[in-house]
Amino acid sequence: MGELALIERIAARARPRPGTPLGIGDDAALVDVGGRAVLTHDLLVEDVHFRRPTTGWEDLGHKALAVNLSDLAAMAAEPVAALVGLVLPPDAGPEEVDRLYAGMEALAAAHGVTIAGGDLSAGPAAIVAVTAVGRPAEGVEPLRRSGGRPGDVLCVTGALGAAAAGLLVLDEPELGAGVAGIEELRDALLRPAPRIAAGLALGRGGARALMDLSDGLALDAWRMGRACGLRAVIDLEAVPVAPGAAAVARAAGRDPAVLAATGGDDYELLAAVPPEAIAGLRAALAPLPLTPVGRLEEGEPGAVVLRDGAPVTLRRLGWEH
Amino acid sequence: MGELALIERIAARARPRPGTPLGIGDDAALVDVGGRAVLTHDLLVEDVHFRRPTTGWEDLGHKALAVNLSDLAAMAAEPVAALVGLVLPPDAGPEEVDRLYAGMEALAAAHGVTIAGGDLSAGPAAIVAVTAVGRPAEGVEPLRRSGGRPGDVLCVTGALGAAAAGLLVLDEPELGAGVAGIEELRDALLRPAPRIAAGLALGRGGARALMDLSDGLALDAWRMGRACGLRAVIDLEAVPVAPGAAAVARAAGRDPAVLAATGGDDYELLAAVPPEAIAGLRAALAPLPLTPVGRLEEGEPGAVVLRDGAPVTLRRLGWEH
Repeated sequence: MGELALIERIAARARPRPGTPLGIGDDAALVDVGGRAVLTHDLLVEDVHFRRPTTGWEDLGHKALAVNLSDLAAMAAEPVAALVGLVLPPDAGPEEVDRLYAGMEALAAAHGVTIAGGDLSAGPAAIVAVTAVGRPAEGVEPLRRSGGRPGDVLCVTGALGAAAAGLLVLDEPELGAGVAGIEELRDALLRPAPRIAAGLALGRGGARALMDLSDGLALDAWRMGRACGLRAVIDLEAVPVAPGAAAVARAAGRDPAVLAATGGDDYELLAAVPPEAIAGLRAALAPLPLTPVGRLEEGEPGAVVLRDGAPVTLRRLGWEH
Repeated sequence: MGELALIERIAARARPRPGTPLGIGDDAALVDVGGRAVLTHDLLVEDVHFRRPTTGWEDLGHKALAVNLSDLAAMAAEPVAALVGLVLPPDAGPEEVDRLYAGMEALAAAHGVTIAGGDLSAGPAAIVAVTAVGRPAEGVEPLRRSGGRPGDVLCVTGALGAAAAGLLVLDEPELGAGVAGIEELRDALLRPAPRIAAGLALGRGGARALMDLSDGLALDAWRMGRACGLRAVIDLEAVPVAPGAAAVARAAGRDPAVLAATGGDDYELLAAVPPEAIAGLRAALAPLPLTPVGRLEEGEPGAVVLRDGAPVTLRRLGWEH
């Protein structure tokens, strides 16, 4: 049984009770504590989400916090604090802990986040379990995945495929030979930038549904389509491919647009936007690009990927750990 | 470097920023999100905190949530929701997940808690990383560890040593031969009851400092003493020993009072109470006992354990994982 099926199984068993207006199934939960807390929890597990020979401890600290802040960005929420559960393998000691927290603190400082607590244990592998806590920004309702309507344009921030290309190069450095911007691809994988400001701007500027791209555009658009009860249509030729990612994809014998549409770990945002709001949002997000890549329409809930208007079957939709 | 030293190292590096009035160092953090969220995160790691041959998946689900709810009880807070990070070893599948969530949901239902989100990953061992979210009860300020004053009486809820005796019997079943209530000892270890109602009553009834007993009374009293800048004095002969625990301790060649004062995993509460508030609190908590076991006084911050008025040196203060 895959990750998605297991999560659906868990969601079916978790009973909603008063005080939690939004539970399992979105980028973050909403919990009433007087005000409204926006809460998310993501794990990074050694040899599943990262490998120690290619991921420094600073990178690990940065990324573990970044993927959680990205989930807050995907609700158009402001981050406030984080709790950190850390499992350390036998060969990691105080120096490794210092480096991990240095990477995490630098990102926390950039976003005004306090590392407010957590837990620490020995264990068989390095695992970082971060919970990020945010609050709705002044006057901005948290944006769910499910708010899209037929006719909304699907837009992505930034460009896609950089992290997937970075992973290819990390595994086979010769794929990067002669490609400009290899460091940027590696950083996209190991030190993603959570799109907090873009999430807030999308919330303020009229986006109807929002999520972050952690498992690849095709799979995540399928999730948004299902949440909205609509078909998400993605035009492969419209997907913005990150600089350098196309060259690496070709060196690996992969189609650049397919790599960009199915590669995980981009942590860009996917928004459903009414057509009339696009111009204002592009201005608000600039210089970060906001690119239309498809639309929501009536149809079987899920996603379809088109190349030149014809459906394509992808070997896999995206990244299931 | 031990767990305590590493946590102090981490705490020294985590900069406090606006929005988080209480960070690392107490049972839970306080985070402003409009209202005030009370947040805690505890890990259970296979072969560190539990062993699979002796801990069922339902027990694991119950305990992983219970230890976190206990931290909310230790702030005199009301629980609302929990997020669950779950790492599954290769031999665990949907059935194990069902059993774990069954154990967790039963406890969540008893306390009105929603399992509101989380994450799931494959990994080398079973690990449950729970974040519990609470809110201050109407009219009750969250109770910190640091609020005790000289002359306050240290009191514990319930009786101690049951979980430590349960662990002895789990490891060596013959130690339980002829002892009544062995099941209760096992349950104390595997299915602790978070003292939510007692925590609220202590908050309403004038306790000045509060924490839960996860690592043994002697070590946890040392922590409370340090947090208050006072010496915590524990009278060994006053420590209430759980039924059955004394018999198991004697069978293992251990001093029952020392087992009760140093055994971990009790999840009872330790409160610093002004003498005049004790009678009212005992009435409010009944039938759960509230037992004076010592006091806070001026002196070197930390704890001292007395037997018949003379300091005793314990082989170890408590449980460091």
